[in-house]
Amino acid sequence: MRAVDLIIKKKNGQPLSKQEIHYLIKGYVDGSIPDYQISALLMAICFQGLSSEEQLFLTTEMLESGEKIDLSSISGICVDKHSTGGVGDKTTLVVAPIVAACGLKIAKMSGRGLGHTGGTLDKLESIPGYQINVSSAEFLKQVEEIGIAVIGQTANITPADKKLYALRDVTGTIESLGLIAGSIMSKKLASGANSILLDVKVGDGAFMKTIEEARELAQAMVRIGNGFNRRTVAVLTNMDEPLGYMIGNSLEVIEAIETLKGQGPADLKQLCYDLSAELLMMTRIKLTYEEAIQLIEEKVTSGEALQKLYQMIAYQKGNPNVIVDYSLFGTAPYQYNVLANEEGYIKKIATEDIGIAAMLLGAGREKKEDKIDHRVGIKINKKVGDFVEKGESLAVLYANQENSEAENKVRRAFTLQKKKTEKNPIVIDIIR
Amino acid sequence: MRAVDLIIKKKNGQPLSKQEIHYLIKGYVDGSIPDYQISALLMAICFQGLSSEEQLFLTTEMLESGEKIDLSSISGICVDKHSTGGVGDKTTLVVAPIVAACGLKIAKMSGRGLGHTGGTLDKLESIPGYQINVSSAEFLKQVEEIGIAVIGQTANITPADKKLYALRDVTGTIESLGLIAGSIMSKKLASGANSILLDVKVGDGAFMKTIEEARELAQAMVRIGNGFNRRTVAVLTNMDEPLGYMIGNSLEVIEAIETLKGQGPADLKQLCYDLSAELLMMTRIKLTYEEAIQLIEEKVTSGEALQKLYQMIAYQKGNPNVIVDYSLFGTAPYQYNVLANEEGYIKKIATEDIGIAAMLLGAGREKKEDKIDHRVGIKINKKVGDFVEKGESLAVLYANQENSEAENKVRRAFTLQKKKTEKNPIVIDIIR
Repeated sequence: MRAVDLIIKKKNGQPLSKQEIHYLIKGYVDGSIPDYQISALLMAICFQGLSSEEQLFLTTEMLESGEKIDLSSISGICVDKHSTGGVGDKTTLVVAPIVAACGLKIAKMSGRGLGHTGGTLDKLESIPGYQINVSSAEFLKQVEEIGIAVIGQTANITPADKKLYALRDVTGTIESLGLIAGSIMSKKLASGANSILLDVKVGDGAFMKTIEEARELAQAMVRIGNGFNRRTVAVLTNMDEPLGYMIGNSLEVIEAIETLKGQGPADLKQLCYDLSAELLMMTRIKLTYEEAIQLIEEKVTSGEALQKLYQMIAYQKGNPNVIVDYSLFGTAPYQYNVLANEEGYIKKIATEDIGIAAMLLGAGREKKEDKIDHRVGIKINKKVGDFVEKGESLAVLYANQENSEAENKVRRAFTLQKKKTEKNPIVIDIIR
Repeated sequence: MRAVDLIIKKKNGQPLSKQEIHYLIKGYVDGSIPDYQISALLMAICFQGLSSEEQLFLTTEMLESGEKIDLSSISGICVDKHSTGGVGDKTTLVVAPIVAACGLKIAKMSGRGLGHTGGTLDKLESIPGYQINVSSAEFLKQVEEIGIAVIGQTANITPADKKLYALRDVTGTIESLGLIAGSIMSKKLASGANSILLDVKVGDGAFMKTIEEARELAQAMVRIGNGFNRRTVAVLTNMDEPLGYMIGNSLEVIEAIETLKGQGPADLKQLCYDLSAELLMMTRIKLTYEEAIQLIEEKVTSGEALQKLYQMIAYQKGNPNVIVDYSLFGTAPYQYNVLANEEGYIKKIATEDIGIAAMLLGAGREKKEDKIDHRVGIKINKKVGDFVEKGESLAVLYANQENSEAENKVRRAFTLQKKKTEKNPIVIDIIR
């Protein structure tokens, strides 16, 4: 078998066999097949795609390339949740405590943010003292004892995916449905949960810009999950405006806490409740949606959900008092308003640009090596369908210094019109 | 400017600017852009193509990456000829002496064979003593004095193309019209001739399998040549059967000598005369085709064309007596016939397989490092449209030892049928 022949095969639109994909991935990881052959293959895949079978083969190879987390020692039902990434996406910080309060075990390894999207680890690290580096043994113990843990990657899972992703990043081959599906699912499968909920973001602020491509990705991932005998559900959710009002690390943790106190923004609350309900229904087959929502409402109202967040922060050496005293997060030195130049209804918000503006302020990374300031970010004051007066505040920037580039980006992100438009629903579709 | 952004631009089907192509090629040559980015770009080009403008930009960059041969010191008209490669293609060994005898100066740098096609340098090296490594000064002196030289690459021309070609070879990105056109034309332009004749082979034994793709390549190369103010003509010629009867290095030189003696096979003779006529008409505008052919016939009949080959061999330290004594080439120890299993007319000959069989016998290289045996090869006895009796010889193998793989390949290469088919003409089209 020669790599060049397999590249040509894929270039010509023919499917690769299990053995051929094994040969390529194994050879790439052990260094016997060079970067430049794999990048040509990846580009051919971007044009010719991967069949469902090839996606399964690829996922298998990436999964088997590294360690796998064994959650079998944990009593009860272990669930996992993944978001494809958006702007202001703090759902994990709400959903994980809710489902833990409902009796599920949530054992989640999260990632960092890159580009216009934030990452859950960065948000959690805005909590003073919070440790994301936890050994596998401690991770299992924490989940068993309190039912909830959100940590960084502990074991050396899916090294093949890591190596491939780094190559895709610099060769313009990120955007390929089969590659994205394989990358996400190999990590989820290696993380060990039996039930996997996927939040596939769609819209201007997401990687998937159209419902069609988001649905295809969702279907591909559900197919892979089922192919490995994991209960897998994907929810297509709207990312045509930031989720909630807050963008930035400590700002988002605060908004998540508010939501667990029953005071969060409507869209964030609905999404978190629906995702939590889906996780409950996946694992308790006879539960109806209405019953699930009722249970969630109870756990929020009683404070049990918030208590789970408190327990997790404390267990991971963070200061849990942030829940009652937001000043512990520290505050950005400059806060200033971005004012509307005219009046009108918000027609749309260029969500990716809001994410980029937050990154420019220091809330995110352009490159992996960049440092984050956990205090900075953006609070948007207006969402799609809202009316704004001329001179009224569209958003507040939390910054270290004046930043006209970020300010202009935020101002231009809002498109106004005379008539009020209807908002798209937050949950677009569910693929089971 | 970032390479990854340019890769994505090409991936999305947008054309690259002159500056962008400069950045990419320069960066690749100086090592600041790594292989793995360029191979992804090349694969994107295979799918999205290169516009005529982009082809010109790419050719310019490859041309300017290295030295250029300056033929301006040579009196008279310097011409060059290039073949895209086929099986049994010894035309250079006939055309160069003919046009030199007609008063043109032919200053040609040739290449080696790879895969199923032979290379002119390998053929010339079958002549005892023939030197292909000649300095630029000696090259110019030879062309000035005797009007003909066929040598290996002397100066460091188009290093960018060399580096790109090596990468394309191992990443499945050879077959892209714009890349092929740019690669060939940058070398021809660097070689310095003002008039360039391109023999674009089409058919089973050629890289271009269909007339449509061969015509597109020919048009692209003529456009590039004209873009650099060189007279450029492309001739589309049939490669659905080996050219002449002989395949293999010394065997082909012998057949070329026979043709210069007026005794060559009809197809080879016609092609060589037509290509020579085209070169004469390109450089002497008022000459008609009939006049050109008449001049060529005279130069062959008078022995002047053969004399030019003799002079060239002698000048390049080869033994010119091979022209009268073929035994000086040496003979392959085994010669055996491949016999027909049934009777019938030859419908078609799998020409690429004949080329591969010759390679298996040792006449060609599978890999660049492989050694060649100049004496081995194949003489086909039947061409398309010929009748063969059962048990009659289809071909003779000239070999070092019995080789059943080559023998079977040759036998299976011939397809017979009851009715006689018409042959395609040797010259399919001329693109001026």
